[in-house]
Amino acid sequence: MSSSELTILKLGGSVITEKDRPETLDGDALRRAASAIADAATDQLVVVHGGGSFGHHHATEHGVSTTIGTDDPAAVLGIHGAMTTLNQFVLRRLREHDVASVPVHPLSGAVRSGDELHVQTETVRGMLDTGFVPVLHGDVIVDQERGATILSGDELVVRLAETLDADRVGLCSAVPGVLNEADAVIDRIVAYEDVEHVLGGSDATDVSGGMAGKVQTLLDSEATASIFDLDAIGAFLAGDSPGTTIE
Amino acid sequence: MSSSELTILKLGGSVITEKDRPETLDGDALRRAASAIADAATDQLVVVHGGGSFGHHHATEHGVSTTIGTDDPAAVLGIHGAMTTLNQFVLRRLREHDVASVPVHPLSGAVRSGDELHVQTETVRGMLDTGFVPVLHGDVIVDQERGATILSGDELVVRLAETLDADRVGLCSAVPGVLNEADAVIDRIVAYEDVEHVLGGSDATDVSGGMAGKVQTLLDSEATASIFDLDAIGAFLAGDSPGTTIE
Repeated sequence: MSSSELTILKLGGSVITEKDRPETLDGDALRRAASAIADAATDQLVVVHGGGSFGHHHATEHGVSTTIGTDDPAAVLGIHGAMTTLNQFVLRRLREHDVASVPVHPLSGAVRSGDELHVQTETVRGMLDTGFVPVLHGDVIVDQERGATILSGDELVVRLAETLDADRVGLCSAVPGVLNEADAVIDRIVAYEDVEHVLGGSDATDVSGGMAGKVQTLLDSEATASIFDLDAIGAFLAGDSPGTTIE
Repeated sequence: MSSSELTILKLGGSVITEKDRPETLDGDALRRAASAIADAATDQLVVVHGGGSFGHHHATEHGVSTTIGTDDPAAVLGIHGAMTTLNQFVLRRLREHDVASVPVHPLSGAVRSGDELHVQTETVRGMLDTGFVPVLHGDVIVDQERGATILSGDELVVRLAETLDADRVGLCSAVPGVLNEADAVIDRIVAYEDVEHVLGGSDATDVSGGMAGKVQTLLDSEATASIFDLDAIGAFLAGDSPGTTIE
């Protein structure tokens, strides 16, 4: 890898939290992820994590989604508070492994106006240039037309990849890649039609939802991305393309 | 006041915290400020607060200032963590008074490059447009040349006033205005020479420091600002110009 390569790694919410228990960390998984990140010592790295049982719980409770907004500050603080709590766990674990991680909360630097999403990437770029590892997360952000809406971790990854012109994008999920009918990892996806028979119709996709939305979001973007599981973080950061490659 | 008027109100760190005791809130002062803000029901309001005994303590401990930076993530997290704790107190008190307050952390949306400060004001504007009251604070932010440096509440107020084209700017401080030799409030200041004999030489000013830096920063900006104390928040928000006016 050249020293100027920029890598974006997303830690799925379902990887680092216990999906079925509200606001419960999967401490062991997070420790393994932090250890793999520390060992790789990637030159320029942006970490993004999802919400898992922290964010989704509050978003559902307040009826807020990526398209349905709220003007209730209690909803904003509830969702944002849960996500910053999870973010603090991630930061702490990375710091314990001597990763120079610093937080970036999308509520403070992103804004949506209908279909247009603006993320303040100058701050992220500044952190990278000064040797820090910015750690962002799915969050609730202001939408000028709809009040406050959800920004999913996947949507954030794609936006950052485009704006920062990332060289490598990896999504660590709960499964080793996109699986076919025989539960084997599909090596490469270039069009949604290729996987519609296993993931379902593209109408059913939701950007903050499961694999179908993830694949759709990544296909819509110009970045090439890998989807893999916790075991493959090290291989991905070492330059390999484990799991499923989406381009 | 017209309904589209934009007001920026800064709550000085020395007003809402116990200056001499590390990380100690002045709960009564904060409650009075929150109550005055709620009563005024200002149409478009941005609140900024200083660091007081929360931020300054950590900044001093880590040797970080507005011009001396750090590349130590522990310093960044220490200062930022203290400031977000204070921010949560301010948000909670405002929420108790039914102010639709939401947090904006400068570390996540601002960046400095030498003398140039970039603040992500689109997010703040989006919050105002959707009826929220953004609450920002002095913070540690990334400086592309110096690592992470301090962004003072006063510097942030001036930058926001310029970028958002604010109609009114008020700084609530521990004193009723800029005082002359007889401790009487000076009504109006248009040049630093007018007050040099009471505030000291302009060389001695520090943007995160006392009244001299405050006056210097406000004089350097195009915004007209008032400096007053806790008793005058209501009058200021009602449209008066209490304390000292700096233009």
